[in-house]
Amino acid sequence: MKNSELQKLRTQIIEQTKEALRNSTSPDHLIIQSINTVMELDKVTNTLSTRLREWYSLYYPELERKIEDHKKFAELVLKEERAEDSFGSILAKEDLDAIKQLADNILQLIQARYEQEQYLKVVMKKHCPNILSLAGVTIGAKLIDLGRSLKRLALLPASTIQLLGAEKALFRHLKTGARSPKYGILFEHQIIQKAQRKNRGKAARMLADKLSLCARLDFFKGEFKADQYEKEIEEKLEL
Amino acid sequence: MKNSELQKLRTQIIEQTKEALRNSTSPDHLIIQSINTVMELDKVTNTLSTRLREWYSLYYPELERKIEDHKKFAELVLKEERAEDSFGSILAKEDLDAIKQLADNILQLIQARYEQEQYLKVVMKKHCPNILSLAGVTIGAKLIDLGRSLKRLALLPASTIQLLGAEKALFRHLKTGARSPKYGILFEHQIIQKAQRKNRGKAARMLADKLSLCARLDFFKGEFKADQYEKEIEEKLEL
Repeated sequence: MKNSELQKLRTQIIEQTKEALRNSTSPDHLIIQSINTVMELDKVTNTLSTRLREWYSLYYPELERKIEDHKKFAELVLKEERAEDSFGSILAKEDLDAIKQLADNILQLIQARYEQEQYLKVVMKKHCPNILSLAGVTIGAKLIDLGRSLKRLALLPASTIQLLGAEKALFRHLKTGARSPKYGILFEHQIIQKAQRKNRGKAARMLADKLSLCARLDFFKGEFKADQYEKEIEEKLEL
Repeated sequence: MKNSELQKLRTQIIEQTKEALRNSTSPDHLIIQSINTVMELDKVTNTLSTRLREWYSLYYPELERKIEDHKKFAELVLKEERAEDSFGSILAKEDLDAIKQLADNILQLIQARYEQEQYLKVVMKKHCPNILSLAGVTIGAKLIDLGRSLKRLALLPASTIQLLGAEKALFRHLKTGARSPKYGILFEHQIIQKAQRKNRGKAARMLADKLSLCARLDFFKGEFKADQYEKEIEEKLEL
């Protein structure tokens, strides 16, 4: 081959590679980035809310215990309705404004988390409708994150899915003989939450079985069966 | 005493206590809350920026290395100007919108940090003008935070002020005989940064001396001498 031909071939190959890379992002990657953003926003909101509570306690210490919800707390800080008989200190307007600014930031972050979740729903509705329906948006996305992709999740045994997110407890079990975990991330699922305490292990097993089927249906573009699975579980567990 | 008199006395005492508590918040408390908010906002911005960089790399991987500054990076994400020959994947509008929303959140947090700093300046200008001038707003506020109050800072020996923020290294030195630290939080100060490497220990000692004087002047409502101190240090170190 002549030099110019080689050059041409090289350019062609680079272009092909670029083209392949341009199409290499699957919805999995987007879901994983977005759910990680959601988890980080949660953590950040918690950190800043703890700070807000401490700071606002200089002015209105009684509110801290009264309101547990971070969003509601931040909203009340913005309203600045302080009980007249509060033990807190009187603060200047500029001092209160600095606190209110923090409350405002927190509300923005809570809103941001909500919008990320809306986005996740849209992507998952298209990409993995069965998982979305049976697991819910955050648990579903976390499963894909923990499984590293929908494909890998679809190929995992149900018993592994049952324990995704419980790796630490599982290794503790293997190492020290402590009790084996019954669920990881699935613990947050309302089916587990609603089940009687003695049935929770069974519930987790059933849920993981069906989620494993959901992942396969979604990966192989099968039909929508999540509704039916959910009903089956609820009937068996008498929920 | 009759019961009704006792009752009256009790109410009076409670009122007096409340009154005392209402006036118990010193500017120190406000400075400490605000500087902690600043530090938390910094941490949060870093976490979310790392996420943004990873996520946006799906679309425009080359930008990550090109732009180190988090603010500038987020601004460029919002502009969405991608090099035509990028190796990144093409994303749908809704996918890019979710990423841009995160960039937007980050910019809001950076702005919030800036505004907290402005507030700190106002409070410190009134409460501790010497420290503000010689240490700068963030280092000055961190010193008050580490010293736990202006009063306590004013009473600390200069050698302790020199090592505030280096507690870990100091205890390592005491326990294991590792080299003793030369500075803690003061390391960030431009005088230390500008000093020749071999002079840094000396610079830290001089700066801590003068900051100790500043804290005393501020606590005992003395005159403004920070300017003069700064000149003295710079002359001696030939900066």
